[in-house]
Amino acid sequence: MSGYPLKETRARVEKHIYRTPVLSSRLLNSMSGAELFFKCDNFQMAGSYKIRGATNAILSIPEDKRQQGVATHSSGNFAQALSLASKHLGIPAYIVMPENAPSVKMNAVRDYGGKIITCPATLKDREETLAKIISETGATSIHPSNDYHVIMGQATMSAELIEEIGNLDAIVVPVGGGGILAGTCISKAEMKPTIEIFGAEPAGADDAFHSLRLGKIMPSLQPNTIADGLRTQLGDINFPIIQKYVKEILRVEDEDIIEAMKLIWERMKIIVEPSSAITFAAVLKNKEQFLGKKVGLIITGGNVSLSQLPF
Amino acid sequence: MSGYPLKETRARVEKHIYRTPVLSSRLLNSMSGAELFFKCDNFQMAGSYKIRGATNAILSIPEDKRQQGVATHSSGNFAQALSLASKHLGIPAYIVMPENAPSVKMNAVRDYGGKIITCPATLKDREETLAKIISETGATSIHPSNDYHVIMGQATMSAELIEEIGNLDAIVVPVGGGGILAGTCISKAEMKPTIEIFGAEPAGADDAFHSLRLGKIMPSLQPNTIADGLRTQLGDINFPIIQKYVKEILRVEDEDIIEAMKLIWERMKIIVEPSSAITFAAVLKNKEQFLGKKVGLIITGGNVSLSQLPF
Repeated sequence: MSGYPLKETRARVEKHIYRTPVLSSRLLNSMSGAELFFKCDNFQMAGSYKIRGATNAILSIPEDKRQQGVATHSSGNFAQALSLASKHLGIPAYIVMPENAPSVKMNAVRDYGGKIITCPATLKDREETLAKIISETGATSIHPSNDYHVIMGQATMSAELIEEIGNLDAIVVPVGGGGILAGTCISKAEMKPTIEIFGAEPAGADDAFHSLRLGKIMPSLQPNTIADGLRTQLGDINFPIIQKYVKEILRVEDEDIIEAMKLIWERMKIIVEPSSAITFAAVLKNKEQFLGKKVGLIITGGNVSLSQLPF
Repeated sequence: MSGYPLKETRARVEKHIYRTPVLSSRLLNSMSGAELFFKCDNFQMAGSYKIRGATNAILSIPEDKRQQGVATHSSGNFAQALSLASKHLGIPAYIVMPENAPSVKMNAVRDYGGKIITCPATLKDREETLAKIISETGATSIHPSNDYHVIMGQATMSAELIEEIGNLDAIVVPVGGGGILAGTCISKAEMKPTIEIFGAEPAGADDAFHSLRLGKIMPSLQPNTIADGLRTQLGDINFPIIQKYVKEILRVEDEDIIEAMKLIWERMKIIVEPSSAITFAAVLKNKEQFLGKKVGLIITGGNVSLSQLPF
């Protein structure tokens, strides 16, 4: 990432966000046989890490153009994040959302001041609606994960983790669109290259697994998983970074995601969404891989509909 | 509390427990109009503050007698706490529990090594069963709330809060049996007498409210509230302390407890039980009382059955 150092990104992003805590649990350590460090962006502003990338992307737009606003299509957390980051920075945010997005996420976008435009849930409809909004408003389109500035913003999360916990052996990262996974690769490459990076991906949306195996981006056909943040697919900007640095993609069944989520809620007393619990599930299902190691878990968010829990 | 200083209690108790965090939320501050400091013993060992009092009570038993174990009857959190504290200190714990106690709490007592004896849910049955166990085992009976050593142990929680947050104007404390409320009175009296102490009590179990008004302990007749930890009544040891130091008991309806609990889960991403959420509910329902003030909230625990949520 030549000419765009992580340090500079952190300096401009971190003053607009929280530094989130790194939590541990004796019980979950003993269940997994590893020493686990939960980097908790469920406590981040707007309930997920996505405000990191959103903030960095907005700050990268030239000042005069920035005033016309930003726009995106998102299934949820990035929509909230872009809305709140835009509010902080005093510009409008236009959010194209699928009609079937969770109500808690739609309400949060409205609360944060985002302007919602709904459309059918297909990718084609979302992209067409977005294009229309951009031509009408002059807003800058920001992709939730396949954007250079977004990836650099997401890298600040693992940078804080690596800075705080010395000698991590591995970091397990949820993989959906690939933004946080690519960001984690960048910070480990710059700060501590010996850390092994694992992606945790739903078995019902395992396009990253197949893409890495085949060496080219495979589309995510009919993704089916409770981890609603992980139904998207890799892009041409983050894929090469992931290819270069990720050791392995671990696929996880939904029932194991739910079990891991319940354990985290019951034992750690924190609320994490399925797309985050997948990291702990991946460790539990691959114990031999992590036995006795110091493992960072990227807890990406805590936005769930309390009236639609899987347990 | 002559001859039994808080400082000495802290020194012997705090090495066996966690120092829990004090959390804040910009959103909940703006909703309440106050500056709120959540002292989070939902993150405490065994999921509640009760291990503080349990540990102190066990340590106060002479060494030879202590080996015969401890016994109690408890609707839940104290049972878990006494079981885990006993395990830490290498002695048996006999727990008399009502047959209708939440399964998550029974399972946790077993996990922590406590020996469960079930009985009908009436106070009479529980006391008779407890007496029988004590005569059979030689165990020392420890009351969950009306015990001098338990109260002093619970005082360590507010002591940590007062030490960490300078210039608190008030602390709001759940009131059930009165142990944590009396303990909070003791620490404020010793550390910062200007702090005003408020009890938060379910409207459906408002014996403390009536007891304070009438100047004598009133029994809790047919308590009916979702806050299962707050159905018990004050005792002769904690009542005089509460009478002396508590400014007011604020009664809260169950629907307001549930609403406050949901806000804390959704916005702070932490799991608190109804008996803890009542403190935030009390602030929201009495805004004028706390407007612009720095208010500590005693978050007593996070043990809930995820399959039986009120939302």
